[in-house]
Amino acid sequence: MKVIVNVQLKNGVLDPQGKAVHHALGSLGFNSVNDVRIGKQILLDVAGTDAEAAKEEVTKMCEELLANTVIEDYTIELA
Amino acid sequence: MKVIVNVQLKNGVLDPQGKAVHHALGSLGFNSVNDVRIGKQILLDVAGTDAEAAKEEVTKMCEELLANTVIEDYTIELA
Repeated sequence: MKVIVNVQLKNGVLDPQGKAVHHALGSLGFNSVNDVRIGKQILLDVAGTDAEAAKEEVTKMCEELLANTVIEDYTIELA
Repeated sequence: MKVIVNVQLKNGVLDPQGKAVHHALGSLGFNSVNDVRIGKQILLDVAGTDAEAAKEEVTKMCEELLANTVIEDYTIELA
């Protein structure tokens, strides 16, 4: 079962990578961009067919390893 | 207008970061994971309300800066 985890910095946490990309886009002439935030997208292939169980398992993975919940939010999608 | 760009390594391109996370998950006792791939999720706030124009603009950004199209694929979603 494919599971997609999106990890983004929480609102209010400074995102230097996003700022750098925003600046670079401006340098390339893309002036219509107001803001850029950069996070991670983690694609997991989890064994089993029980969607609820998979979601619970992946939530544990996020809490323990995949996201730093002090500064990051995560969302889990079953694909 | 919010635009989400997901950038992932192409199939067949080695993903050392994914391998490392896969190994770490195994060490933590998550043995149900078959594969891990890690990419970027870029959230853009683009001026304007024309969805088609925004998508075209963001496609150009991807080709020029956001993705390395030699080794990465990208998808664009309007949120």
